[in-house]
Amino acid sequence: MGKLDYVENFLQWENEFEFFYPVTVRFSETDMFGHLNNTVPFVYFEQARIQYFQSKGFMQDWVRPESEKIPVVADLQCDYLQQIYFNENLKVYVKAARIGNSSVDLHYMAKKDDGSVCLAGRGTIVQISKKTGRGSAWTEEMKKQFTGIDKSGIR
Amino acid sequence: MGKLDYVENFLQWENEFEFFYPVTVRFSETDMFGHLNNTVPFVYFEQARIQYFQSKGFMQDWVRPESEKIPVVADLQCDYLQQIYFNENLKVYVKAARIGNSSVDLHYMAKKDDGSVCLAGRGTIVQISKKTGRGSAWTEEMKKQFTGIDKSGIR
Amino acid sequence: MGKLDYVENFLQWENEFEFFYPVTVRFSETDMFGHLNNTVPFVYFEQARIQYFQSKGFMQDWVRPESEKIPVVADLQCDYLQQIYFNENLKVYVKAARIGNSSVDLHYMAKKDDGSVCLAGRGTIVQISKKTGRGSAWTEEMKKQFTGIDKSGIR
Amino acid sequence: MGKLDYVENFLQWENEFEFFYPVTVRFSETDMFGHLNNTVPFVYFEQARIQYFQSKGFMQDWVRPESEKIPVVADLQCDYLQQIYFNENLKVYVKAARIGNSSVDLHYMAKKDDGSVCLAGRGTIVQISKKTGRGSAWTEEMKKQFTGIDKSGIR
Repeated sequence: MGKLDYVENFLQWENEFEFFYPVTVRFSETDMFGHLNNTVPFVYFEQARIQYFQSKGFMQDWVRPESEKIPVVADLQCDYLQQIYFNENLKVYVKAARIGNSSVDLHYMAKKDDGSVCLAGRGTIVQISKKTGRGSAWTEEMKKQFTGIDKSGIR
Repeated sequence: MGKLDYVENFLQWENEFEFFYPVTVRFSETDMFGHLNNTVPFVYFEQARIQYFQSKGFMQDWVRPESEKIPVVADLQCDYLQQIYFNENLKVYVKAARIGNSSVDLHYMAKKDDGSVCLAGRGTIVQISKKTGRGSAWTEEMKKQFTGIDKSGIR
Repeated sequence: MGKLDYVENFLQWENEFEFFYPVTVRFSETDMFGHLNNTVPFVYFEQARIQYFQSKGFMQDWVRPESEKIPVVADLQCDYLQQIYFNENLKVYVKAARIGNSSVDLHYMAKKDDGSVCLAGRGTIVQISKKTGRGSAWTEEMKKQFTGIDKSGIR
Repeated sequence: MGKLDYVENFLQWENEFEFFYPVTVRFSETDMFGHLNNTVPFVYFEQARIQYFQSKGFMQDWVRPESEKIPVVADLQCDYLQQIYFNENLKVYVKAARIGNSSVDLHYMAKKDDGSVCLAGRGTIVQISKKTGRGSAWTEEMKKQFTGIDKSGIR
């Protein structure tokens, strides 16, 4: 469990991110130690992930009440590389690192205004059937969406 | 808009509460000013209200996916009478102050371990039909439940 | 405790707002009833209030560790005029409705993209001394700031 | 990054936990997919960790304003083994898996009422000096506390 064991080459890893979600640290997200509470980056990751899925048209389907499929989080992790403070602007990046049959391994990175990386993370999302609770395979179209955006740099 | 304009006689108001929900202030609920963030008492109020509704068997119905009715919050208010800190134990009281046709006016009060009142509040809950979005009248049974518990002091 | 008893003339009240904070409803801010959880508007109000105070240069002082004064919330209330859903964009307005010696009564209003008002609210903020815990009077400069922005429409 | 790569033998790992923090899922912690939002287990982990540190007398020191040391989270991860719903009771266990010079690797496990494990996790906490921001070594006394409680089963 070395830190950042999901990153082989940090610079290359950092450069492969294209999509980001901008966020400003809220006052209610600080704690009495004066910095961003450690639970909040996962809120940022979720929001970045959802915007990322929306950019591909996935989220819109999932939130329809009649949708038979929803994405669930299988695991999540975060490395806290710097302390983060009230009112700081962060860019929360997300990319698809590996695409499985019904799952996708997403990586996360947050940068401060000075370009320094303050958070790194990853986690697996699985598309499941609401009825069975089991994995529901991505369509070919969806798989293309995951890889396309990462290669073409669309944002 | 005087403070506590929903309380006529404070001592009497304080004594009429019977039902409470115990809570301990979480670390993530503090903010960089070192005390409980002002948004959190509404989480406590919600939790106390839900426990209160559960004690009457209402909540169990509302959370069933097939339920045709849900409770919605029409308004909420809170008076912050004392600063509250990490790890403090609070008793969050709730009582039905006035019962309408499809609504109920709930009052809230939180006490510290020393018995002092640190939060006061109120808010109207309306039972609505999921389909129409309009108020759905309480049954006579439900109305009895609201008044019964407040008179008999069960808990 | 009629609803919106802090609003005399709704149209006039609505038109007097100038400053707003834009926010998009996060997924984690919804609850199992499928809409924005009732505790979250107070997070939006806080964030709008802080941006408003920042626009006047107040917040920057208050968050310095050596600051002798901090703002505390004396009371807060919210009227929920419409249900609010995931991913909706809101403009959360704030204005100073009445300025006291060491306090200010702020009003809040949130509008959806279609211009309809979905939340209304108010609450008193008091500037206190960290040492004594008692009210610390606004300077004349600060009072001018409160009134100035509301009259001149600066944003 | 196989799932649960921090667990060698699951049964042994499960049995080594002794200390736990009981929690009931709050309504505001659910999301529109009808289950516990994925960001909330980290709140539970923090709360369990703090109670664990309090049981050793560490937390009481750290939260004193004059304390020169605070604990910071270096990394955190969570594996979601089952969906979790409103009002479920969880026991959130915590144990010290490895004690470094100024850090400790904590493991987490949450069980439902039926005894099934629904969450697993881990994360490194580092005691740092507020002034320098660098690691501040545990005293021998503190190290004994970490190991003692895990061996003797005090709770």
